[in-house]
Amino acid sequence: MGTTPFLRNLWYVAGWSADLAPGDRVGRLYLNKPVVLWRDMDGQAHALEDRCVHRAMPLSAGVVEGKALRCPYHGLEFGGNGRCTRIPAQDKIPETAKVRAYPLVEKQGIMWIWMGDVERADPARVPNYPIHEDPTYAWRSAHFPVKGNWQLLVDNLMDLSHLPYIHARTIGGNPELHFSTRTQSHKLPNGVRVARHMPNSEPPPTYVDAAGFQGRIDRWQEIEFEPVLIRIHTGACEAGTGAYEGRRDQGFSMRGFHGITPETETTTHYFWSMATNILTGGVPDEVFEQTARTFREDQDVLEMQQERMLQCPDEPLLDIASDVGGRHTRQLIARLLREDGDGDGRRRPHPAAAPATPQSELTP
Amino acid sequence: MGTTPFLRNLWYVAGWSADLAPGDRVGRLYLNKPVVLWRDMDGQAHALEDRCVHRAMPLSAGVVEGKALRCPYHGLEFGGNGRCTRIPAQDKIPETAKVRAYPLVEKQGIMWIWMGDVERADPARVPNYPIHEDPTYAWRSAHFPVKGNWQLLVDNLMDLSHLPYIHARTIGGNPELHFSTRTQSHKLPNGVRVARHMPNSEPPPTYVDAAGFQGRIDRWQEIEFEPVLIRIHTGACEAGTGAYEGRRDQGFSMRGFHGITPETETTTHYFWSMATNILTGGVPDEVFEQTARTFREDQDVLEMQQERMLQCPDEPLLDIASDVGGRHTRQLIARLLREDGDGDGRRRPHPAAAPATPQSELTP
Amino acid sequence: MGTTPFLRNLWYVAGWSADLAPGDRVGRLYLNKPVVLWRDMDGQAHALEDRCVHRAMPLSAGVVEGKALRCPYHGLEFGGNGRCTRIPAQDKIPETAKVRAYPLVEKQGIMWIWMGDVERADPARVPNYPIHEDPTYAWRSAHFPVKGNWQLLVDNLMDLSHLPYIHARTIGGNPELHFSTRTQSHKLPNGVRVARHMPNSEPPPTYVDAAGFQGRIDRWQEIEFEPVLIRIHTGACEAGTGAYEGRRDQGFSMRGFHGITPETETTTHYFWSMATNILTGGVPDEVFEQTARTFREDQDVLEMQQERMLQCPDEPLLDIASDVGGRHTRQLIARLLREDGDGDGRRRPHPAAAPATPQSELTP
Repeated sequence: MGTTPFLRNLWYVAGWSADLAPGDRVGRLYLNKPVVLWRDMDGQAHALEDRCVHRAMPLSAGVVEGKALRCPYHGLEFGGNGRCTRIPAQDKIPETAKVRAYPLVEKQGIMWIWMGDVERADPARVPNYPIHEDPTYAWRSAHFPVKGNWQLLVDNLMDLSHLPYIHARTIGGNPELHFSTRTQSHKLPNGVRVARHMPNSEPPPTYVDAAGFQGRIDRWQEIEFEPVLIRIHTGACEAGTGAYEGRRDQGFSMRGFHGITPETETTTHYFWSMATNILTGGVPDEVFEQTARTFREDQDVLEMQQERMLQCPDEPLLDIASDVGGRHTRQLIARLLREDGDGDGRRRPHPAAAPATPQSELTP
Repeated sequence: MGTTPFLRNLWYVAGWSADLAPGDRVGRLYLNKPVVLWRDMDGQAHALEDRCVHRAMPLSAGVVEGKALRCPYHGLEFGGNGRCTRIPAQDKIPETAKVRAYPLVEKQGIMWIWMGDVERADPARVPNYPIHEDPTYAWRSAHFPVKGNWQLLVDNLMDLSHLPYIHARTIGGNPELHFSTRTQSHKLPNGVRVARHMPNSEPPPTYVDAAGFQGRIDRWQEIEFEPVLIRIHTGACEAGTGAYEGRRDQGFSMRGFHGITPETETTTHYFWSMATNILTGGVPDEVFEQTARTFREDQDVLEMQQERMLQCPDEPLLDIASDVGGRHTRQLIARLLREDGDGDGRRRPHPAAAPATPQSELTP
Repeated sequence: MGTTPFLRNLWYVAGWSADLAPGDRVGRLYLNKPVVLWRDMDGQAHALEDRCVHRAMPLSAGVVEGKALRCPYHGLEFGGNGRCTRIPAQDKIPETAKVRAYPLVEKQGIMWIWMGDVERADPARVPNYPIHEDPTYAWRSAHFPVKGNWQLLVDNLMDLSHLPYIHARTIGGNPELHFSTRTQSHKLPNGVRVARHMPNSEPPPTYVDAAGFQGRIDRWQEIEFEPVLIRIHTGACEAGTGAYEGRRDQGFSMRGFHGITPETETTTHYFWSMATNILTGGVPDEVFEQTARTFREDQDVLEMQQERMLQCPDEPLLDIASDVGGRHTRQLIARLLREDGDGDGRRRPHPAAAPATPQSELTP
């Protein structure tokens, strides 16, 4: 397996709203296409093809002028819809003077972009993440470059059995505790949900420090995949107070948002946020840095893994018991890739490029 | 459009004579071929294939010995005609012991090289640039590497409407003044001539400082393309003294020489000189540096433009009104590429590789 | 000529035993295959495919645990035979959970690896180098990366006529002395032997300093190629004491071991040791550094040579008189490549990839 193809007809995280002030412009690749994100002086964010129609100059090297983005080379200007609005020293602006505009929606602090067929872009289907607007939570966000195919990051997050190894020096904890907990994976209509519950267990010291637990706790790790983002909810309540029936208001909650946007076949934009209901005054630098350090450990792993996969593209993978959530996710992705291909003949994934089907003798 | 192929049967600028002292040797790629330029101890400059016939070692890593260039690996020596003149520990030197010699002509401070068919190399057709020998001018030269196809540098210089944008912080000036001046482009038998005349206009402060104008001036910008170099003449005379009829002796003249030599498909040697009839005592560092800074701004633009073109090779370009000179130049280059192909079947440009024909709805 | 293909069914130097302590693991490419060398806590060295069977993670990023190597990602463990010995949170370990194990033999301070067909790996055919165990010699070793195809390093060592040029500032010496000495090359059943003898000659100052010669000497340079390593023996005895009949005990000996292991098509592991019968108390830093400096000069040359060969892959090479030993070696390699191809159809070298046959008009 070398790389998994792109799913095109989805809303992807393009960036964090707070990172793009009026007048800002930034050039990025999404799904291998050059895009300039920019915010006009009225505060509206836009996404355009990052290539001037005149001489192919990246518009992201230009400047925002009022409601327009101006090319740095010969001064052509473009509106948020991609139409050229000004050609210096020329009165008539022809129909063909336009660049591609990508649908962009801002919601809950996140900029979402649609890289697929424009007629299929439905703002009502932008994923929901109310935690970012919930006053009982404080949150902070980051944007990490990952030198690996997007599927590897999905695999990484859907199987937390890597914690005691990769993250031994950060959040790893005791391997045996991880292994003795049963992992349950459920297929959803458009997702996968993995849960690990540790009822009536001893609280770890960090939980005691954060939430002041005095007795035993009902603890959970819940991971939910939706193409292509992952929400991870970890936390605990006092034992027997109904955490597994949904009564968690009095408990300790950590919420991880993981937006996974392909940059190229072998690199990925990783947009993550962390939220907690304890530190409602704001997430202190040292807490944020500890999380960031953990995810940097994952970056290193994915880079090594990707490099080896490209060197040995024909070698199979082998599933183990803890891969149950990841396997369900790969099955869903494979189905979506088949369906996505129907909507756009040119981009139907070649059979040889389909995601690898690991050998599965070990599924529990 | 990715890149424009090479024109082979032309004299190209190889370098500046003053930069190659006796005993010097320098390895460069021209039109993707490794060449060593060297000057023997008698002062004669030569251009040889930069690859020893014995074990493919670059000769540019060797040393000049009298009239010969010695390979650094096993000591073979070669004369300016490419014939091996010495093989250590061996008496007989076979006919096959030779490297390719490229015709090289020195004239007016410029080394010119012929990379095409040897039998078509006519020293009488080396371009002329008498300004370098004119005692009423002082000049300085430079060699800039450009990370872009040679055509992009031609486009850049044939359309100076980019001045108010790219060079806003250096020589840009007032955009509106640029736009209100009519650009005239004329096809020549083997070139293109673009002229912008500003008769009876206010002199800019820099012109007043340099030449002491007291009243209005007749100002000109004249650009002449000849495959593949560009001469740019800017300047002014007192209004009504005959500047547009050729009487410019009493005026202020800036002469730019721009030698454009392909290095690879996506990189170019840019050899430029600037001359002026004002600073005949020599071009001071700060004046030279200001010009160099301007051209470095172009380097940055061409690099970004080339990168985007390689990422989106199938996307068309769109001509605008100010492209008239550039369009004439591209038409001439396309014709020369067709003719050049006739002389050497192996190198005939593939149709798919021909220079892009921009959409042309906007030509004035 | 671009590059010479790999000979697969040979024992290659994998590294120096002293460089791999218990618990150490190092990831390297041999013949383009990722391999992890590691030594278990009982002192046994192993070579495994450097790619976990689960998710393709490099095992060299893991840790040694007793007799096993543990993957850093999800904790799978592997024994020296490549079989998985532990999968966390899973009882049954399937047959397919294994990585490839490469035969590895340690002998005389050298680790030898077999990258070819496993059934042909015969430990009895591991090359012999008793100098490393000879108490009358002191030696030191190094591992140099070479940015060139392995054949270029073989060529370099089989033709020492490059000494007066490449090594003019280190061990070069007088060119004329080199040229006046006759080089004799003999084909062996599985090798080539080149000898240069200088009987009854003046001792060079370094020899006088090292060995205290008082009169004339019988001096020798003997180079022996065996696929793919080279032994170089240089030294001298008092004239007329029987050096050329093998009586060299009282003389001065320098022994060079040169293990040449392809890393990729264009890079090579160069494992060398130097031994001398004079400095039996150990090789001082400055003597070792002088040798290392010499070989770094070769590294630079091979890198330039390789780069040029890749740029001009279709250009022929030309043999000269001093290439007699190198030519015999290339003939042997070409024969072995034909034979090696028989054992493994997939890897039979393509005719176009066979080692270049230089033009040979000059053989003495």
